[in-house]
Amino acid sequence: MYRVCGGLACFSLCLIFLVPSCSGGNILVYPVDGSHWINMKILLEELHARGHNITVIRVSTSWYIKEKSPIYSSITLEMEEALEDFFDVFVKEQIKVQREGASMLSFFKLNKDFLSMLTQAHVLWCDVTKDIFENEDLAKQITDSKYDVVLTDPAIGGGLVLAKYFNLPVVLNVRWIPVGEGHFVLAPSPLSYIPVPGSGLTDRMDFIQRLKNIFFNCITKFQELFLVGPIYDDICSKYIEGGCSIVSLLQQADIWLFRSDFVFDFPRPTMPNVVYIGGFQCKPAEPLPADLEKFVQSSGEHGVIIMTLGTLVNALPQDVANEIAEVFSKMPQKVIWKHKGDRPSTLGNNTLIVDWMPQKDLLGHPQVKVFVAHGGTNGVQEAIYHGVPVLGIPLFFDQYDNLLRLQERGAGKILQLADLNGRNFEEGLKEVLHNSSYRQNIQRLSRLHKDKPMSPMDQAIFWIEYVIRHKGARHLISEAYKMPWYSYHSLDVVLLLLAVGAVLLYSIYGVFRFLCCRRKIKTKTKLN
Amino acid sequence: MYRVCGGLACFSLCLIFLVPSCSGGNILVYPVDGSHWINMKILLEELHARGHNITVIRVSTSWYIKEKSPIYSSITLEMEEALEDFFDVFVKEQIKVQREGASMLSFFKLNKDFLSMLTQAHVLWCDVTKDIFENEDLAKQITDSKYDVVLTDPAIGGGLVLAKYFNLPVVLNVRWIPVGEGHFVLAPSPLSYIPVPGSGLTDRMDFIQRLKNIFFNCITKFQELFLVGPIYDDICSKYIEGGCSIVSLLQQADIWLFRSDFVFDFPRPTMPNVVYIGGFQCKPAEPLPADLEKFVQSSGEHGVIIMTLGTLVNALPQDVANEIAEVFSKMPQKVIWKHKGDRPSTLGNNTLIVDWMPQKDLLGHPQVKVFVAHGGTNGVQEAIYHGVPVLGIPLFFDQYDNLLRLQERGAGKILQLADLNGRNFEEGLKEVLHNSSYRQNIQRLSRLHKDKPMSPMDQAIFWIEYVIRHKGARHLISEAYKMPWYSYHSLDVVLLLLAVGAVLLYSIYGVFRFLCCRRKIKTKTKLN
Repeated sequence: MYRVCGGLACFSLCLIFLVPSCSGGNILVYPVDGSHWINMKILLEELHARGHNITVIRVSTSWYIKEKSPIYSSITLEMEEALEDFFDVFVKEQIKVQREGASMLSFFKLNKDFLSMLTQAHVLWCDVTKDIFENEDLAKQITDSKYDVVLTDPAIGGGLVLAKYFNLPVVLNVRWIPVGEGHFVLAPSPLSYIPVPGSGLTDRMDFIQRLKNIFFNCITKFQELFLVGPIYDDICSKYIEGGCSIVSLLQQADIWLFRSDFVFDFPRPTMPNVVYIGGFQCKPAEPLPADLEKFVQSSGEHGVIIMTLGTLVNALPQDVANEIAEVFSKMPQKVIWKHKGDRPSTLGNNTLIVDWMPQKDLLGHPQVKVFVAHGGTNGVQEAIYHGVPVLGIPLFFDQYDNLLRLQERGAGKILQLADLNGRNFEEGLKEVLHNSSYRQNIQRLSRLHKDKPMSPMDQAIFWIEYVIRHKGARHLISEAYKMPWYSYHSLDVVLLLLAVGAVLLYSIYGVFRFLCCRRKIKTKTKLN
Repeated sequence: MYRVCGGLACFSLCLIFLVPSCSGGNILVYPVDGSHWINMKILLEELHARGHNITVIRVSTSWYIKEKSPIYSSITLEMEEALEDFFDVFVKEQIKVQREGASMLSFFKLNKDFLSMLTQAHVLWCDVTKDIFENEDLAKQITDSKYDVVLTDPAIGGGLVLAKYFNLPVVLNVRWIPVGEGHFVLAPSPLSYIPVPGSGLTDRMDFIQRLKNIFFNCITKFQELFLVGPIYDDICSKYIEGGCSIVSLLQQADIWLFRSDFVFDFPRPTMPNVVYIGGFQCKPAEPLPADLEKFVQSSGEHGVIIMTLGTLVNALPQDVANEIAEVFSKMPQKVIWKHKGDRPSTLGNNTLIVDWMPQKDLLGHPQVKVFVAHGGTNGVQEAIYHGVPVLGIPLFFDQYDNLLRLQERGAGKILQLADLNGRNFEEGLKEVLHNSSYRQNIQRLSRLHKDKPMSPMDQAIFWIEYVIRHKGARHLISEAYKMPWYSYHSLDVVLLLLAVGAVLLYSIYGVFRFLCCRRKIKTKTKLN
């Protein structure tokens, strides 16, 4: 069961694809829902504006991806289970475990649950992808549509399998892959100075930290080999001639549009087909709504603090919210706080609670002095773009790692939720507000981030169109992915050299021994 | 003894530096002579046009680098020995050895001579660099001039030492480094698919070829550790606080402007501070001089063949030249041949011998069908830019490797000088002329090469100005260069893990042995 939706007119089970009305390309998009979609949509809007024809694959239970849109047609596939409820429970459980001090058992259980959820997501999306292959009409329709390229977010690998099945070039809009971080499967990644995501390490590690980094890498490898890998091996062996693996599909992708850059991330080896588009979603601030502008202006010389903990967190524990509200109430600044739970009892007059805020426009407002944030990639990159120092309260996923990158550059400060209380929140807030180095450092990052030969958005569009023009970018893909791992690491050659060395040494030893024995025998004979 | 030359007015031993007349940067250039200078000069012309103030360090015996120039001031240092004579002898000897079939001994001697010459060049330039440090007036003048950046070709490492000494940011305009190819000291370079320069291998290697590649890498390492490295260790230990090595200086360079790209070269790991400017010297063809245009047009439908063996080769052996001339004379095409030796006796009426030719403009002429070339980087990149297939006769250095990259893409064909005769030259020429795949393939490369978000020249200028604006690009340099090699490769951690593993295994073995022994003793006791 699927629905195909063209432009704003939508019909169940009938196929209407927009015929490109201009010289633009024909792009099939296989996105990931949630905050990942926010990014993808911005890219699609730009592609649409430049005359490309876009078709988005979505599921019936999608959170954010609308069926009808003026910028894309859609193909809707049935998916019964929704993961949103799980996320809600997971987030609450995470916060609880962190606040109450995680016992080894509860920590392990939480991570096990998370991994199960992750695995379930991959299974569900692989099933959706299989549905496409099994549905002859839809598969034929996709073939007949002669798409130029599949644009996909490889946090879920279905788009890669789809592209391989239909033999289409692939452009990735990527922050995460199903088996960790993309660079680790694409470019050599010496673990001595490249921190594994989740390890909470930087590019400067002592011996113990390097040991820890290798340990975290083993966890990722375990996940690849025993949890996520087999799900894709299964769909690959059924539908792709000669089989494939999620890693080999990633390694064959034509262009990686990486939502990062080396102002945000630590420098590391990369590959010719990786293009860094970190912060491509950022734009100069637009004017605030009149009432918000009035509130912001009323802060006078003290300025404004803004706080948000992202799209996934619906409510902070009441005690934490109360402590934060109390600290805010004592500050001379005005505060805008995106907060969804019960209204904190200690809320001050200077604090405006909102359901939603124009975050980008506020970050770009000269009155905003500090950004209290959870450290999602989008928020951190917007803070860098607009040069606003961050007081970070990381909750889960990559948030600690993201904030750590700011803290390492002296452009932000991390408060752990486990230790968070009124006193250290107040201290942290005042430090980021009054120690001018935070602002200077993030403004330096902002200058570096903006000083590029081409805007990240233009880069993204250029490389998608490049793949359309040249039907891929095979000449930018290294030969590495075709080699078995032991050849890639030259282990076979090293083994041969060691064997030759050993035989040589043994021969020399043999000759010496023979000579010595002969001498001894001679000496003995003489003595006799 | 040194001379400083400002603009076109030049005075021995007096210091005249042009004060920047615009908001441009103040750039100190430490170039390499010969064909490398041709490239550097094109970059300097562009920098000058954009308002930058340029000072070039040169030696009194320079081949190509003029003391007086409208685009730069110069600092001239004394150097007695010139290497040009050696080159002439070396080239003739090389050709002779290749033609007559190299005995192991003559091949070894030739390479030994070449390495001595190379080592001598490094010593001479290190001495020149030392002269700068020892000359208080000149050193003070350089300090007072407040250069923003040192732009250097690191085929000779003096510019790197100079930049370190004066604590200036560095931009490299690089094709080769003193110890091989730059990527090998900068980015991880798996030898399983990255051919070592000089090995004559591609990125697809079988077992034996990978063995050969490792062997060639050992030669480069030997050169680094025992021939070239010590020369720089010496100057570093004398003049740089805390010492340094040529490799560590290279690893600390702010930006690498690499005269290559991944249309020309095989894809491989790279680093964030590497910018590919391959073909930055190429421009659309300009009209030919009237007489040459007339000659070219007279070729009619058959078109023109052009041939040149570069700047270093003054004469081909007479027998080879005669055979080539004879083949040319039989072709219906017209031929333009840059040839400096005696006039071949077999020269046909269709062949025009010239001392110099407007190579770029000819390559861009639609009548030119084949480029017979030695395979220097500049020529190969110009052939790619203009989409003219190449019949290559590599002589030495990187020429075989350059041509191999074309041959692998079906855009050129290699003839070895050793086997070159009239018959196979004619066959090769006709194959490249009449098999349309050569032209199609090189024109595909040409399209790919030209399809970039920004021209290589604009990229080069952007990144030089970037380093000037931000006083370096430290945030793009990885932490790798600060680590000892065993930490970089995680050998210390692996050793610990192996030791722990061994102790664990031994303990388990001990426990089992203890238990077994106890059982045996018990059994024995029972039996007794």
